[in-house]
Amino acid sequence: MSNLQEQIHAIGARARAASRQLAALTAAQKADILHAMADELGARSHALVVANADDLARAETNGLSKAALDRLRLTENRIAEMAAGICQVASLPDPVGEILREWTPPNGIRITKIRTPIGVIGIIYESRPNVTSDAAVLCLKAGNAVILRGGSEAISSNLAIADALQAGGARAGLPESAVQLIPTTDREAVKIMAQMDGFMDVIIPRGGHSLIEHVVTHARMPVIKHYDGICHVYVDRDADCAMARDIAINAKCQRPGVCNAMETLLVHRDIASRFFAAAAPAFSAYPVEMRADPEAFQLLAGLGYKPLRKADEQSWRTEYLDLILSVRVVDSLDEAVAHIEEFGSHHSDAIITADPAAAEKFLSGVDSATVYWNASTRFTDGGEFGFGAEIGISTDKLHARGPMALEELTSYKYQIRGTGQTR
Amino acid sequence: MSNLQEQIHAIGARARAASRQLAALTAAQKADILHAMADELGARSHALVVANADDLARAETNGLSKAALDRLRLTENRIAEMAAGICQVASLPDPVGEILREWTPPNGIRITKIRTPIGVIGIIYESRPNVTSDAAVLCLKAGNAVILRGGSEAISSNLAIADALQAGGARAGLPESAVQLIPTTDREAVKIMAQMDGFMDVIIPRGGHSLIEHVVTHARMPVIKHYDGICHVYVDRDADCAMARDIAINAKCQRPGVCNAMETLLVHRDIASRFFAAAAPAFSAYPVEMRADPEAFQLLAGLGYKPLRKADEQSWRTEYLDLILSVRVVDSLDEAVAHIEEFGSHHSDAIITADPAAAEKFLSGVDSATVYWNASTRFTDGGEFGFGAEIGISTDKLHARGPMALEELTSYKYQIRGTGQTR
Repeated sequence: MSNLQEQIHAIGARARAASRQLAALTAAQKADILHAMADELGARSHALVVANADDLARAETNGLSKAALDRLRLTENRIAEMAAGICQVASLPDPVGEILREWTPPNGIRITKIRTPIGVIGIIYESRPNVTSDAAVLCLKAGNAVILRGGSEAISSNLAIADALQAGGARAGLPESAVQLIPTTDREAVKIMAQMDGFMDVIIPRGGHSLIEHVVTHARMPVIKHYDGICHVYVDRDADCAMARDIAINAKCQRPGVCNAMETLLVHRDIASRFFAAAAPAFSAYPVEMRADPEAFQLLAGLGYKPLRKADEQSWRTEYLDLILSVRVVDSLDEAVAHIEEFGSHHSDAIITADPAAAEKFLSGVDSATVYWNASTRFTDGGEFGFGAEIGISTDKLHARGPMALEELTSYKYQIRGTGQTR
Repeated sequence: MSNLQEQIHAIGARARAASRQLAALTAAQKADILHAMADELGARSHALVVANADDLARAETNGLSKAALDRLRLTENRIAEMAAGICQVASLPDPVGEILREWTPPNGIRITKIRTPIGVIGIIYESRPNVTSDAAVLCLKAGNAVILRGGSEAISSNLAIADALQAGGARAGLPESAVQLIPTTDREAVKIMAQMDGFMDVIIPRGGHSLIEHVVTHARMPVIKHYDGICHVYVDRDADCAMARDIAINAKCQRPGVCNAMETLLVHRDIASRFFAAAAPAFSAYPVEMRADPEAFQLLAGLGYKPLRKADEQSWRTEYLDLILSVRVVDSLDEAVAHIEEFGSHHSDAIITADPAAAEKFLSGVDSATVYWNASTRFTDGGEFGFGAEIGISTDKLHARGPMALEELTSYKYQIRGTGQTR
């Protein structure tokens, strides 16, 4: 076994031991621990900014983009937000111990299906250091030990945050090693984590496609993937053009860099002229670059729309995360659904229509985590769903699909109470 | 791409297409299809026995054990049982479309969490040909296409059963390629299946440890594992000795070859003499070979118990699946729980006690799929739980834990109905 492997396995073994203690904590104990963590983050605010300055200096030397530097930056204000986020999670109901179902079959044993922690959760993420705190507190609230592996560019910030959480939590009874951060930036560490299924029950990669691919290729334990969002808005024949315009603008422009933003707009032929006439000025004002199929291109060019380009096959498979939009005119609802099934990423897709039958057909026919009728795809979010917090948006179909929050960080077991029953 | 890979991928692509049609079937349509499948199995009963004779002849030449030959054998009676099993699944409520939760957060969108099929399910199994029918109908009932890969020794029987299911179902509207059996016995096929995550949403290996390991090592999609059952019965200080004896005998002897049978018996020191005196004659009558730790060995030897051997470290980690039992005397409930956590497989574990506080401590402290108080571990079974049927017992903690039936063969999605909401 290599030194690195020994080091990571030791972290795993400590997490497994901590998870047994965590599972026995009461809701009140966990709330106390979370508040103590928030206090400690606040108390160390200046030290965290100093640690973050190391990362920022290195990042500037390495020529990171302005946007990347902004994601990496910690300010006293952002640290206060992280602490407030922890207090919010502390105030949520404890998912552990919830009785999911209870019944007595004819054999007379009493079966209780009860929510439990999962055990040990591994989280792999990239640049934003606040994920260190957000992910750790969600895992803890659900009674799990967590092993964090952040991006190398944020290593100083992440170590400082993890240390603050562990030190603050310890004062309120947090078991040792309940929150651990992998201290090395060696990429091999991710592979070792992904293979230590004896110590870790699930691994959650959050980040770019190649990171997720790397984890999927090597993982021996369950992976909950947070892949791309290639989200669609379909403007049906019977749409209200003003509503369709407002939703399409919101879905594309309110925050284009996120996974629930629209990437492709599908428009029914019968409404295309009217819709483009209503929507083009709003899109052009941003401006949104349209990559249009021949029919949409002709209509938009006729309206003098700019910036305008021709779409190609690759356009339908692209997550721009930018003010760029693929546009296609379709013959029918069926063609829209078929397009979404072929090119989409099964994340969030919307139909805009006044026709309830068309809407229901879309809602049942599109196999995506979240399907919308007359609302923006931007609502796919734990906060908007009322979950209080989220670990991300799962693009998987097993265990967790769509916004992933506290409940999705739990498992269950069956407790059976008998009076001597045998088979 | 190899020829085999092309062939398996083509099966995957057809299954994906079929899954879209299956998801749109109503409960009544699925029930009709299942009844037609059962009818066809019955009508082809003689032909199935003939196909099975091929497998049996090959197996005898290859020197399979009597028990293995018995698992492989199809009789008219067993075929009638398979058909009856299908009709039972047909009569169960349709899980698809069930509304799991419905709410309206402050943003005004109406969110419905609704149960959906998973899509395409791969099942890898070993010798018993009835699994071909059981697994296929459960997957179909939950709206999924299924790709089956049975053991090479049952290939003729499995092909004949799959053909009967597909032909019978087709008469009642089953989409083509909804049920497909991998027609080759090449082991490479399992690896190809496990890696085609574009076509298959989950893979479920049922069988020996090396088969499951092979799948876990290669899989890119979620795996639901059905590992060993190293199940414990702990006889607490305050147990009723007669109840403890009856449950221990039942858990070990009623069907020793199954995963929910007891493999290790733990006995509190304070009750050990009395318990062994009460239970030894019953165990000896079978006879059950005891592999005992020094203290249990001394007590059992003092009672003249036979057959008796000394346990070693490996005993606690062994799934005998036979009339052999590891026995250990413990100091306390805590020591029993620690033993189970260290050596058990988190499947099914029981405490026998008249003390409710001890029982509750055990039920919450033992991290197993099913934990029992005063009942036999043999109840870990979809039928006994009232699920009507089961695909197996999951030893995983994500998505499905314990008896896995129709609900565990489904996913969910969020349908959102708005009136023009944007963020």
